[in-house]
Amino acid sequence: MPGYKAPLRDMQFTLFEVLGIDKHYAALPGCEEATPDMITAILEEGAKFSERVLAPLNQVGDREGCTFDNGTVTTPTGFKEAYQQYVEGGWPSLAHSPEHGGQGLPESLGLFVNEMTGTANWSWSMYPGLSHGAMNTLEAHGTDEQKHTYLTKLVSGEWTGTMCLTEPHCGTDLGLLRTKAEPQADGSYKISGTKIFISAGEHDMADNIVHIVLARLPDAPAGTKGISLFIVPKFMPTTDGGIGERNAVSCGSIEHKMGIHGNATCVMNFDAATGYLIGPANKGLNCMFTFMNTARLGTALQGLAHAEWAFQNSLPYARERLQMRALNGPAAPEKAADPIIVHPEVRKMLLIQKAFSEGGRALIYFCSTLVDKVKLSTDDAEKKEADELLALLTPIAKAFLTEVGYEAANHGVQIYGGHGFIAEWGMEQNVRDSRISMLYEGTTQIQALDLLGRKVLMTQGETLKRFTKMVHKFCQAEEGNEQLKPYVQELAKLNKEWGELTLQIGMAAMKNRDEVGAASVEYLMYSGYVVLGYLWARMAKVANEALAAGSDEAGFYQAKVATAEFYFKRILPRTRAHVACMQAGAAPIMALDSELFQF
Amino acid sequence: MPGYKAPLRDMQFTLFEVLGIDKHYAALPGCEEATPDMITAILEEGAKFSERVLAPLNQVGDREGCTFDNGTVTTPTGFKEAYQQYVEGGWPSLAHSPEHGGQGLPESLGLFVNEMTGTANWSWSMYPGLSHGAMNTLEAHGTDEQKHTYLTKLVSGEWTGTMCLTEPHCGTDLGLLRTKAEPQADGSYKISGTKIFISAGEHDMADNIVHIVLARLPDAPAGTKGISLFIVPKFMPTTDGGIGERNAVSCGSIEHKMGIHGNATCVMNFDAATGYLIGPANKGLNCMFTFMNTARLGTALQGLAHAEWAFQNSLPYARERLQMRALNGPAAPEKAADPIIVHPEVRKMLLIQKAFSEGGRALIYFCSTLVDKVKLSTDDAEKKEADELLALLTPIAKAFLTEVGYEAANHGVQIYGGHGFIAEWGMEQNVRDSRISMLYEGTTQIQALDLLGRKVLMTQGETLKRFTKMVHKFCQAEEGNEQLKPYVQELAKLNKEWGELTLQIGMAAMKNRDEVGAASVEYLMYSGYVVLGYLWARMAKVANEALAAGSDEAGFYQAKVATAEFYFKRILPRTRAHVACMQAGAAPIMALDSELFQF
Repeated sequence: MPGYKAPLRDMQFTLFEVLGIDKHYAALPGCEEATPDMITAILEEGAKFSERVLAPLNQVGDREGCTFDNGTVTTPTGFKEAYQQYVEGGWPSLAHSPEHGGQGLPESLGLFVNEMTGTANWSWSMYPGLSHGAMNTLEAHGTDEQKHTYLTKLVSGEWTGTMCLTEPHCGTDLGLLRTKAEPQADGSYKISGTKIFISAGEHDMADNIVHIVLARLPDAPAGTKGISLFIVPKFMPTTDGGIGERNAVSCGSIEHKMGIHGNATCVMNFDAATGYLIGPANKGLNCMFTFMNTARLGTALQGLAHAEWAFQNSLPYARERLQMRALNGPAAPEKAADPIIVHPEVRKMLLIQKAFSEGGRALIYFCSTLVDKVKLSTDDAEKKEADELLALLTPIAKAFLTEVGYEAANHGVQIYGGHGFIAEWGMEQNVRDSRISMLYEGTTQIQALDLLGRKVLMTQGETLKRFTKMVHKFCQAEEGNEQLKPYVQELAKLNKEWGELTLQIGMAAMKNRDEVGAASVEYLMYSGYVVLGYLWARMAKVANEALAAGSDEAGFYQAKVATAEFYFKRILPRTRAHVACMQAGAAPIMALDSELFQF
Repeated sequence: MPGYKAPLRDMQFTLFEVLGIDKHYAALPGCEEATPDMITAILEEGAKFSERVLAPLNQVGDREGCTFDNGTVTTPTGFKEAYQQYVEGGWPSLAHSPEHGGQGLPESLGLFVNEMTGTANWSWSMYPGLSHGAMNTLEAHGTDEQKHTYLTKLVSGEWTGTMCLTEPHCGTDLGLLRTKAEPQADGSYKISGTKIFISAGEHDMADNIVHIVLARLPDAPAGTKGISLFIVPKFMPTTDGGIGERNAVSCGSIEHKMGIHGNATCVMNFDAATGYLIGPANKGLNCMFTFMNTARLGTALQGLAHAEWAFQNSLPYARERLQMRALNGPAAPEKAADPIIVHPEVRKMLLIQKAFSEGGRALIYFCSTLVDKVKLSTDDAEKKEADELLALLTPIAKAFLTEVGYEAANHGVQIYGGHGFIAEWGMEQNVRDSRISMLYEGTTQIQALDLLGRKVLMTQGETLKRFTKMVHKFCQAEEGNEQLKPYVQELAKLNKEWGELTLQIGMAAMKNRDEVGAASVEYLMYSGYVVLGYLWARMAKVANEALAAGSDEAGFYQAKVATAEFYFKRILPRTRAHVACMQAGAAPIMALDSELFQF
C-alpha cells in the first residue's frame, strides 16, 4: 500500500540551513512565537497527523469519492472524523490573528504544515485550504462585525469556507460573470446565479459553510471593474454564534472528475440568497488580488506534493522490483535479477523526482518568507522588494512546479511499469490528482501571460532584475568556490541570457503583441529552470560546507550534492529547447488562418 | 459529447500523395486486390463503422468498465453487439490468408482500418487487436492442424485470441517466467501458472478464447532460452468446429485501472490446463519476436489515435469557447469575448496535436509499407532493407509516438481549462486511456534500449545508416527547392549530428555500458523528432507542389505547409535539450550510491 513519511529532515535542511528561517522570524515583528523549538514541535505534530490520519485516507477518498443526494454531499469514509481531529488539534487557527481566536503564527509556518497535509492527502486538504482563502478575505476586507460573526468560526474550524468565482461561461475571464446582487432595504443583498467548480461547496464536515461570492451590483460597470465580493452563509448565523435558518444557496450537483475524487467539486445555485458586501462595491477583484499570491502558492505546493509522493513511493519499488541485469554486469548476482534502481533510466526518473521535490520545496519556502515580509516587515524597502520578488516568483512557482510535479508523478507510473497503471499501487491516482494543478487558480498559460506580460514587461523588466541581481550577487560571491564553479558559471550565463531574451521579446512585442503570448509558456518554463538552478546551487553550497565541516550526516549531504549535479547536468539543459522555440517567434503559430484548422 | 470523424482526406493524402501506396501495392505480389478503388472503399466502410458504431461507445466503456463475477467478465453495454457487427462486416479476416478464410489483403491495409477503430474506441479495438496477435502467431508457427482448428475460427471472428506473457514477478524480464508445461502421453501439455495483465483474457463477446501462452518445459534451460509457446483454448474444440468441455483456464480477477476501462485486463489462472506446443520447443521468444514489430506498430498507433482524438475534440471547443480578448485587439468585437483559438498558446497546443497526429500517421503508414515488403517482397535486397529500416523505426514509432500522443492528449485537457478535468467532456478519459501506451508492449525505456543498444550500436550503426542515407538523398534532391530549403538545411544538420552522437555514445559505451542506458531515452526522443522532421519535409514538398499546380483544395495544402513550418520552427528545436542532456553522460545519473537515495 502506498504511504507517506513527512520529509522532516529535508524540511529542516531547507528551513534552517538554506533559508535561515530562525533569523527570518527573529527579524520580523509578530513572529516572536515562532522559535526554532516551536517550529520543530509544530512540524513534528503536523507530520504525525499527516502520516497517521490523512495518508491512510488518500486511497479511500479516491475509491469512494463524494456522493451527492438531493443537495446533500457525503465525503468519503473517515474524512469527517479526520477533520474533527484537525479542528481539535487547533490546526485551522495556526496562522490567524489572536484577535479572532488564532494562534498568531506566521503565514509561512502554516504553509510548511500544508505541505505535509497536502502530500498525504491533497483531496482532504482542500477543505481546510478553501477555508483559509475565505479567512484571508475576511481578515483583509471584512468589517469588525463580519469578522466577529464569520471569521472566528472559520478560525476555530467549526465552519468552513469557499471561494465562488467561476461560472459556466467564464473561468479565466471573470469580467464576463453574471451572478447578480440586488440591494435590500436592510443593507443586505439578494444573490442570484450559478457558480461551478466550487471546491468544498457542500459537504458533511462542518456545521456551516461561508461562501465568498463574486457578483455584480445592478449599476455595476461592465467587465472586471463591476465585480463585488459578498459573504453568503449556508445557514444564517444567529446572534449567539449558532446557526439559524437555511439560506437560499444549494448544491445542484457534483462533478465527476479525473482525480481529487475525495474533494466535492460543486455546482452552487444562488436563488436570491442573502448576502453581505465585503470590501468596497465594484472592487471585488482588487480585493481578491491582494492575496492571490498566497492562493497560488498554495497550488504551487501541489506540484511539490505530487513530486514528493511520487518519489517516496517509487523508491521502495525501484529497490525491490527485480528485473533484468545491470548493463555493466550483475549487481545482485545472488538474486534472479537486479533491482531496477541499477538501470540508468530508472535512476534518472528517481533523480528527476528528487530534484523537483527538494528544489520545489526550496522555492515555495523561499516564497513563503517573502509572504511574511510583505505582511509584517516594517522596513518599506524590504517590503517593496519582497512584494516585487513574490509577484515575479508566484506565477513561476505555480505553473512551473505543477508542470514538473505532473512530470514527476508520471515517472512514478513509469517506474512501476504496467503496475503503475493499476489502481491499487496508487501511482496512477497521483497522476490523476496532480492533473488539476495545472488548471485551477489560473492555468499554466494564464500564469505564463501574467509572468511575461504583467510582471516582467509591464515593469520594464524591473521586477525581473530584483531576482537576477540576487543571482548575480550569489555568483559573484561564489566565484572563487571551486566546488560551485561549474554551477556558478552556468547560472551566470543563464542569468544574462534571461535578460537578453526578455529584451528580444519586449522589442518584438512592440510591433506585435502576439509575440508575448507565443513566447509565454516557454519563457515561464525557462524561468522556472533557472530559478530552481539558483536554489540548487545554494543547496549545494550548504551541503558542501557541511561535508567539509565533517558532518556526521555525510550521506544526506552527499545526496544533496549529487542531486544538484544531476540537476545542472541533466535537467537544466532543457532550457536550450525553450530558448530555441521562443526565438522562433509568433509567426509559425499565428500564420495559419483559423478557418483552415480542419480534420 | 465528444466525437470522432475519420480523417479520410488526410489518410488519402498520406497514402496516395506522400507514400504512393498504389505503386507500393502494385509492385508487391499478393496485393493485387488492393487497388485504389478497393482501398478507398475499405477506408470509407471502416470510417462508417468507427464513427457510427464504435465512437458512441467510447464513453460508455469508460463509465461502465468491465464487470467481474465469479470468473465471468461482462463487457460494457454495446461492446458485444459492436463486435458482432464487426464480425458480420468481415473485418477480422481482412489481412489474413484466404487459405484460412481471410480476404488476403495486405497487412498495412488492416493497420489503416485499425487507426480508425482505435481512435474511435481504443478499449474496444483491443479485443480484435489481441486476436490479430494470436492469428499472426498461429499463421507463422502453427501446424496445419492447428491452423485449421484455431486460425480459421479467429479469422472468421467467431473466436478471439490473447497473448499471455506477463507474470506477477516478470514483465520486461521474461527470462524469469515460471509457468510450467508438463508433457502428457497424448502429445499435449498440462499448463500451470498465473498470468497477469492479459488483455481480453475473458469476456462475453465470442464463444471461445484462444490463449497463446509462454511457459517452460520441465527440462528447459533457465532464462529466455527455455521458453516455449502453447495454445490453450478456453473451451476444447470439437472435431466439427464447435466447442466442447471447458479447459482448466480461468479468469481470477480483472484489474482496476487508470484507463481503457472497457477492456478487460485479466489475471488468468492455468490449473493444469490442456495446451499444445506451437513452434519448436524452447524457441518461444524467437517465435514471438518474428512479429514483435507488427505488435509494436499496433501500439504506436495508439499514440496517433489519442493525438488525433485530442485535436478533433479540442478544435471545436477552441472555436466556441469565448474567453478574453486577442492580445492585438478584439477579433470578434461583436461577441462578449474572443474565441480562445485567437490566443497564441491555445493555437500552439492545437498545432502540436495536429503536427503529431498527421506526422504520426505518416510514420506509421510508412512503417506499414515496410511490413508489407518484409512479408511479401521477392527482391532480397529490398526485403533486407525494409527489414532493417523497420527494425530501426519500430521502437521509435512505438515509444516516441506514444510519448507525444500523451502530450497531445494532455494539451486537450489544457485547452478545455477546468472543464478538461471533468469526465463528461471526454478529454480526461483520452489522457487516462493513452497513459498505458507508454507501458505495455515494452515501456519507453525498453524501446529506447532496444533502439540504441540492439538496433543501432549492435549493428555498428549500419541500421541507422539505412535511414540517414534516405534523408541525405532527400536533402540532396531538394537542395535547389527554394521553399524547402530551410527544412532541408535543418534536416541535413540533424542527420549529420545523429551519426556523430551515435559515435560519441558508442565510444563512451566501450568503457562503460551504462552510457547506453543513460543516453537511451533522450536518444530515442531525438531520433523521433528527426524522423518526423523528415516526413514533415516530404509532406511539405507534396503540399507545395499541389499548391503550385493550382489545386482546388488550397486550404488543405496551406494547412499542411503551415503545420510543417510550425513543426520545424517550434517543435524540432526540442532536439537541443536532448542533445545537451545526452552529452552530459552517465556520471550525473550513476554517481549517487543507491543506498543514499532517501527521504
